[in-house]
Amino acid sequence: MRALRDAIMTYGKGLGADIVKVDMFLNHRIDTTLLFQMGEELANRFRQDQPNLVLTVEASGIAIAVATARALGDLPVVFAKKSATVVQSPDVAQAKVYSFTHKRENVIRVDKQYLPAGSRVLIIDDFLADGQACQGMMALCAQTDCPVVGIGIGIEKGFMPGGRNLRAMGVHLESLAIVSGIQDGRILLADD
Amino acid sequence: MRALRDAIMTYGKGLGADIVKVDMFLNHRIDTTLLFQMGEELANRFRQDQPNLVLTVEASGIAIAVATARALGDLPVVFAKKSATVVQSPDVAQAKVYSFTHKRENVIRVDKQYLPAGSRVLIIDDFLADGQACQGMMALCAQTDCPVVGIGIGIEKGFMPGGRNLRAMGVHLESLAIVSGIQDGRILLADD
Repeated sequence: MRALRDAIMTYGKGLGADIVKVDMFLNHRIDTTLLFQMGEELANRFRQDQPNLVLTVEASGIAIAVATARALGDLPVVFAKKSATVVQSPDVAQAKVYSFTHKRENVIRVDKQYLPAGSRVLIIDDFLADGQACQGMMALCAQTDCPVVGIGIGIEKGFMPGGRNLRAMGVHLESLAIVSGIQDGRILLADD
Repeated sequence: MRALRDAIMTYGKGLGADIVKVDMFLNHRIDTTLLFQMGEELANRFRQDQPNLVLTVEASGIAIAVATARALGDLPVVFAKKSATVVQSPDVAQAKVYSFTHKRENVIRVDKQYLPAGSRVLIIDDFLADGQACQGMMALCAQTDCPVVGIGIGIEKGFMPGGRNLRAMGVHLESLAIVSGIQDGRILLADD
């Protein structure tokens, strides 16, 4: 996706061997125009799979999930939570997820009533690296008998195994940009 | 705001003396149509204040902040973070915030480059209770010399002091619905 590639090349920074810093436009400051373009593009790639619910995980997945759900005709968005709250229902689906960004394990949770059995779930996230968050969300869907019709990602780290593993499982995975590597602080993008 | 009032009366639950549970449509499952209606309404209430940046705090503020920023002509959204990440810049503004929902103190942080001095900031959040999150975000703006032109809220707990304190400070505060109390599990709404 051209606009996203341009933003990555203009504002993205490669740190060390594997960190892609895009918080200028995606996951700290959000470029709202670009965000909704990304949502439109993801909607176009999954419309034929007829999702009726968008699932993401807090926090930085929420914006792109909302933009995608909007472009798909205002589908409901459910975001899995990383911490228990005082108002949480006891009837939750949960899965363990190791966060690459935060270097710690989280448990993600969804109140089961918000993932009703049979929902055709489109999983959306801003980043795909080792695939832990996506695998965790797929586990939530399995616990509530919801088929995952696809996974849509803003930026995939193609040099990490998440995308390869998901594709090997037969998941319909679409990433709007794929980073093939980092060289001397420069982000290298794979061809679309 | 009629649509929000209807959603609160239909799906909201009052728990104990002070908990307003609206995770069916606002902060776990999101009703996307209602979300963008709320964004439009907040935009209408603050357009004359000419904000050029929307500030919120992760996680549940992000969706309504994005919807409001969209309705204001795609303003950038910045969300304050509750935990340090491996990619964080050292030059951050930060403030301590006690979370009523999670019963713990968080430090919220914003990379200063994303709140450039002089930005006309509209603070947006899904909930206002004791006002700690809003006061924290105002502290971030003070640290970067940004005027706060207003604060827009989805649901205010009118029986808690946050709104009163902010109005006493002269802040232009708008809440789309105000809960005046909880009685036997029923949510009572103040007149608009």
